[in-house]
Amino acid sequence: MSAIGTLFIMSAPSGAGKSSLINALLDSGMENAAVSVSHTTRAPRPGEVNGQHYHFVGQDEFKALIEQGAFFEWAEVFGNYYGTSKQAIEDQLAQGIDVFLDIDWQGALQVKKIMPDAQGIFILPPSREELERRLVGRGQDSAEVIAGRMAEAVSEMSHYNEYDYILVNDDFDTSLAQLSAIVTARRQRKASQIAAHSDMLNDLLAG
Amino acid sequence: MSAIGTLFIMSAPSGAGKSSLINALLDSGMENAAVSVSHTTRAPRPGEVNGQHYHFVGQDEFKALIEQGAFFEWAEVFGNYYGTSKQAIEDQLAQGIDVFLDIDWQGALQVKKIMPDAQGIFILPPSREELERRLVGRGQDSAEVIAGRMAEAVSEMSHYNEYDYILVNDDFDTSLAQLSAIVTARRQRKASQIAAHSDMLNDLLAG
Repeated sequence: MSAIGTLFIMSAPSGAGKSSLINALLDSGMENAAVSVSHTTRAPRPGEVNGQHYHFVGQDEFKALIEQGAFFEWAEVFGNYYGTSKQAIEDQLAQGIDVFLDIDWQGALQVKKIMPDAQGIFILPPSREELERRLVGRGQDSAEVIAGRMAEAVSEMSHYNEYDYILVNDDFDTSLAQLSAIVTARRQRKASQIAAHSDMLNDLLAG
Repeated sequence: MSAIGTLFIMSAPSGAGKSSLINALLDSGMENAAVSVSHTTRAPRPGEVNGQHYHFVGQDEFKALIEQGAFFEWAEVFGNYYGTSKQAIEDQLAQGIDVFLDIDWQGALQVKKIMPDAQGIFILPPSREELERRLVGRGQDSAEVIAGRMAEAVSEMSHYNEYDYILVNDDFDTSLAQLSAIVTARRQRKASQIAAHSDMLNDLLAG
């Protein structure tokens, strides 16, 4: 097996259901699919496992990786660094693993510039009312806080047309089937199939 | 609903299972999917319905359609004309119907030239032995006839790399699921989704 994996860039506003969809896809038993694991300088939270939830590194190491151009993209958020290592993703892709990268539109643009074959998938809520309902969430927040979340969601959503695919997450199972179809279809593309079946193709086409 | 359909160009050597896959997909309850109906000058066979199996037309009418440039592609086979009408396909696509066009590699090239957005799917048997087994079929034919079929299959298969997708039809249900995934994935592409959900997008992104 020498298939080529695909990097799927997944973006969405809060409340669209992105993480649930990615997790459900990976839990569905789909083989050769994994989420990308980011590097961060923040301290692990209880239960977080190094190499699984994040690669936890110190500030000096992180800055050295920046210098080496090791990251697809990186950002500093509240004094902590977060980055996506090119090498880690390329290693997975070379093994024929499809990698899901959960990232906002700015990160997505940077990744797509470096890896034009990456496939962007943007997940939308089915309506403004439903988005509002999901953002109100547990009902503990002020109208102002909710309006702020809504504005942030609208700002993120305004970039939907920079992606290759759009999923409208109305019914969860339907969206999961559509996400799964995108991955399955990608694996049938000529380049993947030629890599996966070169011996068979030689055999079929022998004089 | 103002989705844009996709034209899927389906090619394969005899024995790969192309027709069975297309029929099974359409019988599976997938909505907004149909086979393209060709024009022909040959006489209907018992049970064939005009407009369903073929558009049956006379030689004069067919030649007039050629003159008008009405066909994606046409060919004369044993004195009968066969052609694929652009208008019929474009009407279906404009209604948001995905159209399956069962055609050989030469026809596929012509269609792809006129409609670059068409997606080519090439179906391969899983091995030379299995192809031979399928071509021997009912066991009534001479070794020479079978060798001729095999040579024809190899010639058709040599064009697999002119297609966007390759299905290796080893297990029928797996191939059917892959074909279905290609169609479903295509419907989630940005252009289709924007056409299908323009009102929703306006609503979501309203200030």
